[in-house]
Amino acid sequence: MAVPTDPQALARACAEAMWADDAASRELGMVLEAVGPGRAVMAMPVTAAMVNGHGLCHGGYIFTLSDSAFAFACNTYNDRAVAAQCSITYLRPARLGDRLTATAAERARAGRQAIYDITVTTPDGTIIAEFRGHSRTTGGVFFKE
Amino acid sequence: MAVPTDPQALARACAEAMWADDAASRELGMVLEAVGPGRAVMAMPVTAAMVNGHGLCHGGYIFTLSDSAFAFACNTYNDRAVAAQCSITYLRPARLGDRLTATAAERARAGRQAIYDITVTTPDGTIIAEFRGHSRTTGGVFFKE
Amino acid sequence: MAVPTDPQALARACAEAMWADDAASRELGMVLEAVGPGRAVMAMPVTAAMVNGHGLCHGGYIFTLSDSAFAFACNTYNDRAVAAQCSITYLRPARLGDRLTATAAERARAGRQAIYDITVTTPDGTIIAEFRGHSRTTGGVFFKE
Amino acid sequence: MAVPTDPQALARACAEAMWADDAASRELGMVLEAVGPGRAVMAMPVTAAMVNGHGLCHGGYIFTLSDSAFAFACNTYNDRAVAAQCSITYLRPARLGDRLTATAAERARAGRQAIYDITVTTPDGTIIAEFRGHSRTTGGVFFKE
Repeated sequence: MAVPTDPQALARACAEAMWADDAASRELGMVLEAVGPGRAVMAMPVTAAMVNGHGLCHGGYIFTLSDSAFAFACNTYNDRAVAAQCSITYLRPARLGDRLTATAAERARAGRQAIYDITVTTPDGTIIAEFRGHSRTTGGVFFKE
Repeated sequence: MAVPTDPQALARACAEAMWADDAASRELGMVLEAVGPGRAVMAMPVTAAMVNGHGLCHGGYIFTLSDSAFAFACNTYNDRAVAAQCSITYLRPARLGDRLTATAAERARAGRQAIYDITVTTPDGTIIAEFRGHSRTTGGVFFKE
Repeated sequence: MAVPTDPQALARACAEAMWADDAASRELGMVLEAVGPGRAVMAMPVTAAMVNGHGLCHGGYIFTLSDSAFAFACNTYNDRAVAAQCSITYLRPARLGDRLTATAAERARAGRQAIYDITVTTPDGTIIAEFRGHSRTTGGVFFKE
Repeated sequence: MAVPTDPQALARACAEAMWADDAASRELGMVLEAVGPGRAVMAMPVTAAMVNGHGLCHGGYIFTLSDSAFAFACNTYNDRAVAAQCSITYLRPARLGDRLTATAAERARAGRQAIYDITVTTPDGTIIAEFRGHSRTTGGVFFKE
């Protein structure tokens, strides 16, 4: 495949390659709502398998949604990147039935490393969690010239 | 129920109450292998639902295992605690079929906050990830005096 | 003193009270360039006392500048707040003679906790470091009603 | 200079090379109390220049002490390493006149990256702060074969 020269088309093509390979995110019901250079928006419903007896979502699933949005956002330049270190702050609980949206945006880049910020919200804009991810490029690509 | 006065018995009783309520961890195949005051060991197999097309585990599941071990370790004193902020560093990939063990130990306490360190390993001791969690007590208890 | 009702005037008054008490930041040559509700801009020159034999700034001073900008930004609502947890990522070295600017902006708030992001740059906009700070209000105030 | 073959002697030699170059740490009154493979202990008095009007130490100096202990600990193998990302949690205030000790220990290594944990205490063992540092080797050395 020819490498797209348009940054938006390249981001979309990288995301499609990522998505085809990411069974874990698909099985959790995630939907990639938007993608562009250095950014991605991923949504996921909080299902019965993700909650405790009080209907509160396990923090691990909030993290996993954020981590997937981060992975898509940092893999939009045809340079394969992996997560090196991530941190999450839980601000409010998420509940059974909530549809969560993780919006990932690039914060800074330097050499092979980059920083992305991901905000997880409910549909009314309430912030559930803030996530910061550090990525590192591997030297690999999605599409060869 | 009378509150156990022995710290180990109290930790065990708190863990049983947590476990009964934690459908999410149970559904992921986690097993609580050990628990004591300020510590917990949780294991989980990497299943097909957790991996990508190359058989590599999604980082979110490594985090989720760590987060569960952290939650059990910080809830061993009959003071209910919740995760406030967590960070994880990925050191090596985990693969389909790996049995991962997360060992959580208390690092420090001050007032209502505490810090726990969790190391995720494979059976031969290879370190997959290091996780640090910050907890905060809520004022609630598992067992009333 | 009457508590200013205008948010910008209140932020300024809080900053003046902070500044009068903050000998450490003053002694390092910091200048508070701007302040407003949930935000602050602080600058500092890299002096000979801050560098190693190669003229590179000790990371501790880059952190300290960021931490001061964070402290001013999270203390702009007449609710005294303290730093609970901070992280910094070093992206590029700072050098003797560089004038560093730390720009702090509020990311999210929930109850007594808040998250601030601070970017440290040189005058040409090069990003030296990214800092994320978690604050917690103490219950105290600068000005009583 | 011949590269010491004994790990403890090598750690000591690396530390001496670091110390000779680290004017910033020396000017803050730091003392390197111990060093060994993957570990270091650094002490510093809290002076008048480091405190606010209430005699409380600016968090930046607690970080700086930790960061120096971290730098010495991660540079004990003749592989030059730099700090990539650091986080600190403040547990209790430090006061004018306190002598702070930062004890750095290696947590994990993988390829070029490593994780160090640093605990800052007062002489009676009270924990002031917990710091976690991520280092990365640069490819350089202190002593050529």
